[in-house]
Amino acid sequence: MRNAFKESEKAVIYRTIHERRDVRSQFLPDPIPNEVLTRLLAAAHAAPSVGFMQPWDFIIIDDLTIRQRIKANFDSENSKAACNYSDNQKNLYQQLKLEGILESPINICITCDRARGGKHVLGRNSVIDMDLFSTCLAVQNFWLAARAEGVGVGWVSILDHDLLSQQLNLPENVYPLAYLCVGYVSEFLTEPELATKGWRQRLPLEQLIHYNQW
Amino acid sequence: MRNAFKESEKAVIYRTIHERRDVRSQFLPDPIPNEVLTRLLAAAHAAPSVGFMQPWDFIIIDDLTIRQRIKANFDSENSKAACNYSDNQKNLYQQLKLEGILESPINICITCDRARGGKHVLGRNSVIDMDLFSTCLAVQNFWLAARAEGVGVGWVSILDHDLLSQQLNLPENVYPLAYLCVGYVSEFLTEPELATKGWRQRLPLEQLIHYNQW
Repeated sequence: MRNAFKESEKAVIYRTIHERRDVRSQFLPDPIPNEVLTRLLAAAHAAPSVGFMQPWDFIIIDDLTIRQRIKANFDSENSKAACNYSDNQKNLYQQLKLEGILESPINICITCDRARGGKHVLGRNSVIDMDLFSTCLAVQNFWLAARAEGVGVGWVSILDHDLLSQQLNLPENVYPLAYLCVGYVSEFLTEPELATKGWRQRLPLEQLIHYNQW
Repeated sequence: MRNAFKESEKAVIYRTIHERRDVRSQFLPDPIPNEVLTRLLAAAHAAPSVGFMQPWDFIIIDDLTIRQRIKANFDSENSKAACNYSDNQKNLYQQLKLEGILESPINICITCDRARGGKHVLGRNSVIDMDLFSTCLAVQNFWLAARAEGVGVGWVSILDHDLLSQQLNLPENVYPLAYLCVGYVSEFLTEPELATKGWRQRLPLEQLIHYNQW
């Protein structure tokens, strides 16, 4: 079919998509060269966005003091989360490593400026959260490009975002959508860790497909 | 660096990311073979999700009557949106083609089941919308894999989502996150249409990068 990539090129895309992992434990301290980081950010910036709003900004955090504060934010939220579980599930939860804030050489917060582009952003009239959704697409571009570069990425979602906004000095209209731990890794695991550790298994794709209606 | 792809393979990833477009106008009627569609859906299903929740489902819509109803939903919302603009901007807005619901051979709604995985999904305690954000990552996997297959994708965000939920018979806990027009295309435009038509230009990446704090 015209416009399609060659079979060998398609295979690279699928390999990237299927070998991408959420990394928490395998970070190496090696610095990421500037030209690599710039390629990753340019990949994120090439994401589609509602009304070409491009609502994202990228905060690159290597300062250890700031990261320690954000780690404390995580610890506090994670303790609260652990209380949702009991018995064996609580034990398993507490054994899972869920972030690499201090072990990764840099953290990157991808934010969403909810006021960018003015009051009436094209395509955002019916669903106001399209700006947040657009920013997620940038996150996934970053994540996939990073896999190809051998760079691991882990999204830390167990954070009080109001506190995180203060910790990063964000303006009122800017939301800290994705807090990412970023660095080269010793290996990419072959399967998602939550599956191999018995927390939850992959759903069969065929159960998730519907035709014309639910 | 270990785990990195070869330079030629990295180039394929970046090419996919930079040549992906939001398609509204270039759809061809050619059907998408089942094996291609299955690869695209498997790519979406390989996205990361909070707590391995995998909250997505895929509704593949080819029924013309259903698509006509959804086109009417778009027309109604789009008329309302046009009222946000005046003079030259309104003229330009009304000339933009913003969906390909009927011209594309299939539409796919990627939904988010907000109740999947039970009450306490790992990693979703602090930010309840992490399930929606995860579903967006699946959308971008789909979109990029489609580009490599020569398949165009356009996200229609100008829809009343309550009405869309009715039109697709969604259960109460399922949100119609992304309504996509999907099909082979005559060409992928070299630049985003909103830029070439003068609606809005790409922001310089360097303006979007911050160090350690905003």
